[in-house]
Amino acid sequence: MSSYESMGKQELLQLKKELDAKFEAFKAKGLKLDMSRGKPGADQLDLSMKMMDVLDSTANLKCAEGVDCRNYGILDGISEAKQLLGDMIEVPPENIIIYGNSSLNIMYDTVSRSVTHGVMGSTPWCKLDKVKFLCPVPGYDRHFAITEYFGIEMIPVPMTSVGPDMDMVEQLVTEDDAIKGIWCVPKYSNPQGITYSDDTVRRFARLKPVAKDFRIYWDNAYGVHHLYEDDQDVLIEILAECERAGNPDLVFKFCSTSKISFPGSGVAAIAASAANLEFIKKQMAIQTIGYDKLNQLRHVRYYKNLDGMKAHMKLHADILRPKFEAVLDTLDKELSSCDIGSWIRPKGGYFISFEALEGCAKAIIAKCKEAGVVMTPAGATYPYGNDPYDSNIRIAPSFPTPDELATATELFVLCVKLVSIDKILANK
Amino acid sequence: MSSYESMGKQELLQLKKELDAKFEAFKAKGLKLDMSRGKPGADQLDLSMKMMDVLDSTANLKCAEGVDCRNYGILDGISEAKQLLGDMIEVPPENIIIYGNSSLNIMYDTVSRSVTHGVMGSTPWCKLDKVKFLCPVPGYDRHFAITEYFGIEMIPVPMTSVGPDMDMVEQLVTEDDAIKGIWCVPKYSNPQGITYSDDTVRRFARLKPVAKDFRIYWDNAYGVHHLYEDDQDVLIEILAECERAGNPDLVFKFCSTSKISFPGSGVAAIAASAANLEFIKKQMAIQTIGYDKLNQLRHVRYYKNLDGMKAHMKLHADILRPKFEAVLDTLDKELSSCDIGSWIRPKGGYFISFEALEGCAKAIIAKCKEAGVVMTPAGATYPYGNDPYDSNIRIAPSFPTPDELATATELFVLCVKLVSIDKILANK
Repeated sequence: MSSYESMGKQELLQLKKELDAKFEAFKAKGLKLDMSRGKPGADQLDLSMKMMDVLDSTANLKCAEGVDCRNYGILDGISEAKQLLGDMIEVPPENIIIYGNSSLNIMYDTVSRSVTHGVMGSTPWCKLDKVKFLCPVPGYDRHFAITEYFGIEMIPVPMTSVGPDMDMVEQLVTEDDAIKGIWCVPKYSNPQGITYSDDTVRRFARLKPVAKDFRIYWDNAYGVHHLYEDDQDVLIEILAECERAGNPDLVFKFCSTSKISFPGSGVAAIAASAANLEFIKKQMAIQTIGYDKLNQLRHVRYYKNLDGMKAHMKLHADILRPKFEAVLDTLDKELSSCDIGSWIRPKGGYFISFEALEGCAKAIIAKCKEAGVVMTPAGATYPYGNDPYDSNIRIAPSFPTPDELATATELFVLCVKLVSIDKILANK
Repeated sequence: MSSYESMGKQELLQLKKELDAKFEAFKAKGLKLDMSRGKPGADQLDLSMKMMDVLDSTANLKCAEGVDCRNYGILDGISEAKQLLGDMIEVPPENIIIYGNSSLNIMYDTVSRSVTHGVMGSTPWCKLDKVKFLCPVPGYDRHFAITEYFGIEMIPVPMTSVGPDMDMVEQLVTEDDAIKGIWCVPKYSNPQGITYSDDTVRRFARLKPVAKDFRIYWDNAYGVHHLYEDDQDVLIEILAECERAGNPDLVFKFCSTSKISFPGSGVAAIAASAANLEFIKKQMAIQTIGYDKLNQLRHVRYYKNLDGMKAHMKLHADILRPKFEAVLDTLDKELSSCDIGSWIRPKGGYFISFEALEGCAKAIIAKCKEAGVVMTPAGATYPYGNDPYDSNIRIAPSFPTPDELATATELFVLCVKLVSIDKILANK
């Protein structure tokens, strides 16, 4: 196969005819497949079923502090849960607060608190004329939804292969004191699967924002979510790096076990400097008497320690790896010589990101839908749902079965080809 | 025994001497007892231990909608949990949203959302010069802490034996559009154990506040928390009453299973009109992907239905009743003829409220502490911790054992007597 761009008009029309026939055949199958959300498959959930047995009516329900986990008490998490999640994200337990079931909820609460009460004594953002966040793009739609909900202006910053464009980040935060934060998924990023390089993390830790209430919102969602045991990305730990750089308060780090144990029934946490945590806890003591300690205990008793969790993550990888490879191998085989899109082969995380020819993403996704395959809506990976190039498509391979994925990906590449031919023909 | 006020100076001095000796004997015992918080005792928690067994690794974890409760999905609660908690608080399941583990957290989030985004389209409270809440006193310190944290001015409204002073409530809400809410614990109120009368509830439902974003914050914390099977307070259901009165959007109703199953590991909910819930869900969809559905399922599978829950609450009552009676009987026996305080005999809830002579509460609590018994700090039941009469003392009898309670209450009445004598003597 050769580059579509280099093909003549007649050749393309002939190819289109063949592909159209294939597309009609797909439509006739009446597919109903979903590659839209980063949702674990049922087989992944089965991996944690024995967690349902570790706390039964005969269990000792006291935590390390000697507190009865069935009752009120302990605002910021039982110590063994701080240890486990601290080990997971490479920070000391004293820099951790354990929350409820959702790191997204912690991020929302963190922004909400800044809006009503500022950050460590700063002016509440609701009293300011303008608040802005930097948003590496493509990025995570639910991050952008939080900042949009609070009326925070979002400034897109392009991703490179080693993280956000740091020249741009450094320049913006030193120029504009309305910029109060940046959303980051630093490891196996959503949606591209990019891990920030050492240089990128070091530059983050050394930012000199004019806004004293600027924070890096470091969503470490996929820290232990590798696909390959012998080929893993490594990320410099940001809290320690900020400390080394003399910027200890610069970062809020978020994590959860949503894609380790059960999404919605896991345990989430924030990590930050002592000064940040002190300010957060003042609010927390007003908001709640405490989170679900029994579920914290359930998680610790099941995984025991970081080794236990890593062993568990290998089982997830064994299920996810063939799914990722099914999609990536099909992309390689069908599209690599066509010059009608690009993609990155991630070593972990939950997504594959496809860059279509400019102006083609919406049409590709619509065409997939026409034949029964649902993708994340085009634009979702950009603030305000607006991808200015109409190019980025997020593929979530975790939920369908491998067979379903093979079919869905076959259809996807077909749609990419058809829409790309139309675009190229329109310019010939 | 006769009224202390009617006793002569010498008589009082003689009594004081005897009581002082008793007090010294108490101090010598080195007590360490806590009657400060409404915390269930370990025996109450034991009642729910079998709940730990209902979801094990062999359980079917699909809810009524057919959704796998281990995975993402269902923002506002599984339908069977809405049914159970709806039955518990006498509202239809469609008027319920199930949240996480804490109704206090829902109340906080409700106020926080109003501060940043208003109520059903009203101006966000952070854009207003002044926001005020009515606070029936004595009341719940954690309610007052939320409004204080958000800089909301709190106006005390005296409680009567049938609920808040409704003349005052009606007048204030029709005069001042800065008044946006009122905190209510309408059944077995915290701390007095008062249940609002039919007339009180009907007047609430018929309020005509000038502020369109005024809501009644109806914390139905003790709806099924009776002490006596054959002598229970009955409260008119407020949502239905508001609907009847043509004020369907006037109320937010909160509840949880914290004092039914496990505090901190229960299930909490809000009930409101369809229009209110629609506005809330828009925010909820930004804040979280969903709450812990496995814990919702665990609760439903354990209690099965309202009958199951009521049977369970009888077991709680069997444990709590002797504790309440131990305190109340001692108060009756020791203080009823002295005219140095008053109290109400509640039929449910978690507290007993003692009204000391004016200016005596702080001194009584300090004296108790001196001998090793911790009470809720004086003033806690008033906004800003400021009881203008220094009179109200909240007694929480649930956590100590009956023996400990007997001792602690004996000490308490002794301290009441000693401090009251000092006050009366100072005026003689």
